[in-house]
Amino acid sequence: MRPVHSPLSADVDPRLRVHSTEPLVGGPPLPLLRRHFVTSNDLFYVRNHGPVPLVDPAAYQLEISGLVHTPLRLSLAELRDRFPRHSVTATLMCAGNRRNELAQVAPTPGEVPWGADGIGNAEWGGVRLGDVLAAAGVGDDARHVAFGGVDQVTRHGETFGFGGSIPRDKALGAEVLLADSMNGAPLSPVHGYPVRVVVPGYLGARSVKWLARIHAQRDPSDNYFQSKAYRLFSPSVTADTVRWEDGLMLGENPINSVICTPEAGASVPAGRCVVQGYALAGGDRRVARVEVSADGGRTWSRAKLTEGERWSWEFWEIELDLAPGTELVARAWDTASNTQPERLETVWNFKGYMNNAWHRVRLDVR
Amino acid sequence: MRPVHSPLSADVDPRLRVHSTEPLVGGPPLPLLRRHFVTSNDLFYVRNHGPVPLVDPAAYQLEISGLVHTPLRLSLAELRDRFPRHSVTATLMCAGNRRNELAQVAPTPGEVPWGADGIGNAEWGGVRLGDVLAAAGVGDDARHVAFGGVDQVTRHGETFGFGGSIPRDKALGAEVLLADSMNGAPLSPVHGYPVRVVVPGYLGARSVKWLARIHAQRDPSDNYFQSKAYRLFSPSVTADTVRWEDGLMLGENPINSVICTPEAGASVPAGRCVVQGYALAGGDRRVARVEVSADGGRTWSRAKLTEGERWSWEFWEIELDLAPGTELVARAWDTASNTQPERLETVWNFKGYMNNAWHRVRLDVR
Repeated sequence: MRPVHSPLSADVDPRLRVHSTEPLVGGPPLPLLRRHFVTSNDLFYVRNHGPVPLVDPAAYQLEISGLVHTPLRLSLAELRDRFPRHSVTATLMCAGNRRNELAQVAPTPGEVPWGADGIGNAEWGGVRLGDVLAAAGVGDDARHVAFGGVDQVTRHGETFGFGGSIPRDKALGAEVLLADSMNGAPLSPVHGYPVRVVVPGYLGARSVKWLARIHAQRDPSDNYFQSKAYRLFSPSVTADTVRWEDGLMLGENPINSVICTPEAGASVPAGRCVVQGYALAGGDRRVARVEVSADGGRTWSRAKLTEGERWSWEFWEIELDLAPGTELVARAWDTASNTQPERLETVWNFKGYMNNAWHRVRLDVR
Repeated sequence: MRPVHSPLSADVDPRLRVHSTEPLVGGPPLPLLRRHFVTSNDLFYVRNHGPVPLVDPAAYQLEISGLVHTPLRLSLAELRDRFPRHSVTATLMCAGNRRNELAQVAPTPGEVPWGADGIGNAEWGGVRLGDVLAAAGVGDDARHVAFGGVDQVTRHGETFGFGGSIPRDKALGAEVLLADSMNGAPLSPVHGYPVRVVVPGYLGARSVKWLARIHAQRDPSDNYFQSKAYRLFSPSVTADTVRWEDGLMLGENPINSVICTPEAGASVPAGRCVVQGYALAGGDRRVARVEVSADGGRTWSRAKLTEGERWSWEFWEIELDLAPGTELVARAWDTASNTQPERLETVWNFKGYMNNAWHRVRLDVR
């Protein structure tokens, strides 16, 4: 394994808006993102936490250990040969998606200033995590399945692989893959070559890239990125007052919706305008309804859901009359009748996670 | 089966606030409700839609039919003898819980004016629906499991048994029971004697009482109470403009929280006061955090979660300083980072379902 210290490799499209180069973090402009239901690999958002590891496929080994009857070490060929192949079209979203809006309330220092671009939808191919766990024989006392990456991340003076865990029941779900392909192509280095986890319905951070280790265990992962980062705190908690154990360990995504086009600040003529966006429900819930306002939230119209799949985002579209001074607003409901909170103040948290306040876009209507 | 036309039988506690006597609908005062984590049978809310049927246990038969390999007819004794016994402590909530607050926005004509009393938590005993379905052998094409009651409800000139369905995956969950006992006692007539369904995490309407029929089928139930009632519409839809097929078929409950004590309008002395309430997350999610404001929502404190179980509500408590003019407000987050919408206007719908706006209680602080 050699880390690549120049991460802007050929597979990163120049149209990505790069929020950080080391580690590589970036996402596509929203109108581009909304153009195709399945995001192309080169426009798929990247959220890395350290240098991109270049893994030698011949030397690669995946270790399955912990509370299992038969610990395993699998080469890439063994992983592919021993288990049936499956695919799932699934949306992954960074927990920091839409973070930049939170700056209107208060800063979230040291965090990536994501717009609504930290999201993408791909067809993932690989083997089921559940099949691999069945081969290892998971003990009854294993309530969580933890993942560890090959990558080397440094936080607070310590260097370690990125990691996290999901509950056992989720890990055994047919939708959770150990993926080696993305939209029919092998994973690129920035997306986790040769193998990554794909956990549909959960925050992106659990879809660990450059997967090295699977560990069945009693408790959730104690990796920094689960025990401290990727936790949700009350709006009143700050970096100075935080007690990490008080934070909600993030898991399933909350209901969310985003206006992609017209983009914020766009100049558009007054009159009829097609507004398009995406919405996402978490866990195994679906998006039930999207409403859009062209007057800052006073009146609402129901958007048409144009394309969706069980583990994917929902694309929506609506034609609205735009007048000068228009502020577009979007809000969605999921199949469990959850809807989005109205104000950024409600969801603000010092790490800037899971912003699902109503999405507002100011336009320059002439 | 004889309908009871005087439903205020001995098992209805006189402390229940009766919203309607025919059909019987009522719930307990909130301070009483909050006193015990497990609600006593006589204080458990009742939401019936027709006369209470009095079922002869010797003649009772449960029919399992539809897309099954072996249709079954089970007597009460067969149901009890053929399947292992299980219990689950689970909260049921009427989809109309908290409806009366919505009148602040606009009326919801013809609907029961529930306060926050349409909810209760009990230990249910019986057999697993999944075990009964396994005995019948559910076909692969059965995506939904429908229930029908013995009761006779009249709507729009037609008389039929109350009914509804849940998705197959939910029906096979270990938590879904065909219950014949409630807190160790046989079900009383108003709660569904001799057998009712208990579907934890879903709106109460799917926990069909006086169960007569289980039907495995391709599509959701076309019973009135699923195809028309118990659907969620946009705030802009009214009884005059409704197209029933546009409504979200209710299923899992959304995140919710309620202040039980002090009760709205209570006279309390200024100074420290213990505030108590309940919170409920839907599906298999849990309540992650409850916050309470003593100043109408300007500042918030985190309440202590004092008691909860996987399929039950969460009891919470907090000590706050109350000043004259105090408005208490509660809001909660679930483990999927969903939180409650702030305003009643956002959730208002003409049927008055699933109000989960921030719960506000005005007190008379002296």
